[in-house]
Amino acid sequence: MYPEQLLRLIEVFKQLPGVGQKTAQRYALTMLDMELEAVSDFASALIEAKDKIHPCQRCGHFTNTDLCSICLDASRDQTSICVVSSPIDILAIEKLDQYHGLYHVLGGLISATQNKMPDDLTIDELVNRVDEDVKEVILAFSPTLDGETTALYITNRLENKTNISSLAQGLPMGGQLEYADEMTLWRSFENRKKL
Amino acid sequence: MYPEQLLRLIEVFKQLPGVGQKTAQRYALTMLDMELEAVSDFASALIEAKDKIHPCQRCGHFTNTDLCSICLDASRDQTSICVVSSPIDILAIEKLDQYHGLYHVLGGLISATQNKMPDDLTIDELVNRVDEDVKEVILAFSPTLDGETTALYITNRLENKTNISSLAQGLPMGGQLEYADEMTLWRSFENRKKL
Repeated sequence: MYPEQLLRLIEVFKQLPGVGQKTAQRYALTMLDMELEAVSDFASALIEAKDKIHPCQRCGHFTNTDLCSICLDASRDQTSICVVSSPIDILAIEKLDQYHGLYHVLGGLISATQNKMPDDLTIDELVNRVDEDVKEVILAFSPTLDGETTALYITNRLENKTNISSLAQGLPMGGQLEYADEMTLWRSFENRKKL
Repeated sequence: MYPEQLLRLIEVFKQLPGVGQKTAQRYALTMLDMELEAVSDFASALIEAKDKIHPCQRCGHFTNTDLCSICLDASRDQTSICVVSSPIDILAIEKLDQYHGLYHVLGGLISATQNKMPDDLTIDELVNRVDEDVKEVILAFSPTLDGETTALYITNRLENKTNISSLAQGLPMGGQLEYADEMTLWRSFENRKKL
């Protein structure tokens, strides 16, 4: 009942994460309401980003040059590497303006369900990066089964090469103890801090 | 901290309805993860839809020909016109497979807050379409202030030309009476049905 071009546009929007039929329709109709120039802009932004952006040769963060802006920044602490699953995590950490070291993007986590093996990630590259100059490796993964598996594997690979730490787990700020799930509460007991 | 092409891609995604910084980032990173071919496909779907799709000359529904598939369908009841605010409403109604007449898309609703006046809508075109062959005009607007204003205005313009009806208002199916808002409850009293 919709013309084929509109059906196709709805289908492509459905490729975006969390977008179902209704949202894709809304997006597609919004595009049709936009000026031709804005739609061309949208299309060229897609092509250009895909064309120009690639992983940083050292850390795997997105960049349009050989090394990303973080790796090129000599004022950053070169002795610390924060390991993340994807570049989006870097943005979240950078927003804090608390960590000023380097990063390493794994390109995912070891996952049985998603069939991701250590070889599919940049773990070898990480191990190669960690020389005597690197004083600390911080594993910043989401506290999930995959995150813990990956942390365990990397810890084994890097053993004795450097200090390894991982983000603290416990009750989130502002959270109510009575509403915390069992795993979180258990972790917050286990990791209790002496005052 | 992100390369400019990625920032630009995030900005264009923020033009979609209900998409903020985080969602736009997620969409943009998803696009970067996709194959080049899929991204080109996405871009060409945008351009092609914008290029080929335009309003139906008669009813304003999206089409890639002069008249839309509904207006061209001679088997549909030509004596009934259902007036909607946007083409997306047509899809919702068509899904019911209960109404088999024609449509008329207004291109919005009369709205003081969005500065939409009757002249900005296709109300004149609707009035011209309603000749002696049209037995009923159904106003299918959302039950909002704008919807009611528009219904009132159109009723005045079409007075004595044909039968005009509007969608019933009342308690939604499966809704709990005690949770209904006052306006809905009041309407459901006012429109109570004799059994």
